[in-house]
Amino acid sequence: MRISELSRRSAVPTATIKYYLREGLLPPGRATAATQAEYDEGHLRRLRLVRALIGVRGLSVSATREVLGAVAEHAGERHQVLGLVLGARPVDEGEEPAPAPGAAEVDALIGELGWEVSEYAPARAVLGETLETLRALGAGLDRAALRGYAELAERTAVLDLDQIDPQADPLEQAERALLRTVLMEPALLALRRLAQENESARREG
Amino acid sequence: MRISELSRRSAVPTATIKYYLREGLLPPGRATAATQAEYDEGHLRRLRLVRALIGVRGLSVSATREVLGAVAEHAGERHQVLGLVLGARPVDEGEEPAPAPGAAEVDALIGELGWEVSEYAPARAVLGETLETLRALGAGLDRAALRGYAELAERTAVLDLDQIDPQADPLEQAERALLRTVLMEPALLALRRLAQENESARREG
Repeated sequence: MRISELSRRSAVPTATIKYYLREGLLPPGRATAATQAEYDEGHLRRLRLVRALIGVRGLSVSATREVLGAVAEHAGERHQVLGLVLGARPVDEGEEPAPAPGAAEVDALIGELGWEVSEYAPARAVLGETLETLRALGAGLDRAALRGYAELAERTAVLDLDQIDPQADPLEQAERALLRTVLMEPALLALRRLAQENESARREG
Repeated sequence: MRISELSRRSAVPTATIKYYLREGLLPPGRATAATQAEYDEGHLRRLRLVRALIGVRGLSVSATREVLGAVAEHAGERHQVLGLVLGARPVDEGEEPAPAPGAAEVDALIGELGWEVSEYAPARAVLGETLETLRALGAGLDRAALRGYAELAERTAVLDLDQIDPQADPLEQAERALLRTVLMEPALLALRRLAQENESARREG
């Protein structure tokens, strides 16, 4: 397909596609004339992933280039590719993660649940900091409540992974997973707010 | 207690407390001398709620004054007070909510689940817009998946409401509920990210 068709099918403007080509985020098309090139479905899938990494995950162009490089190194390892695209694991695991507030409690929870997660997962720090903040405000959670939330997260993750088409191309799987993971976040929080209102009404009788 | 003690117990600086007093967010203390006043536990609870409305929910001083006014009108009606403090229902229900994208799908879901939620709940619009965005990107959810997420939200809300001490003062209940609802949001999303990584690892075997 021509660049105009690639633009139409991806909803990414032609000028932006040319910028991604110059920045090496997309491989060049097959030249058909001095100023024309032909693109294929692989370009389209990769372009969609680039758009999701920049527009939805909010990465810079250079961070996107690093993620794509790491994804290429792990092509075929679906779990690694998903982790890289979702940001569950950093591209470069060189440094030991700094001990974050609440890390011990998070480690204990993950151990108790038997979860297999990278020690570099950024979500560990987010969780630990939140638990510390709540405790400092005198609104800390007890272990049983935290465990209850974690078990509901497990079931949410099962639903999330069920949405991924196992037949799809790995880059396409990764792009869909990224869109659904990040864009569903406000919807999940909104569902919780609505469910809270309903549950509160129910308890009042 | 003196203002210094009120400051210490609430972790709100004295200058900020004086500002809230001038703005009418806190009722004056009992004057004990020309420049001294005595505050009680009621002041402390109200101050904590003010701090949570401004610092955690992000309301302006004038919006906080409106919420406190509406809370005072509904004192004793726990469900109303919680809804006002959490922002589930607006202080002024004068205007019809504008039809938002995805509203029909949200209405259908809420009807199917039998949830009792205000037609003014801001979370309705957030949910509808997210569903529309996902659909526009070709990553829409089918009805069964959406229903699955909603049922997990119901169970999350049960856990949330279980954390509220039914013996506590209503303003204190509202403040705790606000802290736990808003501050838990990043923790719940972090738990989902960790659970996704674990579930992905599990499926790879």
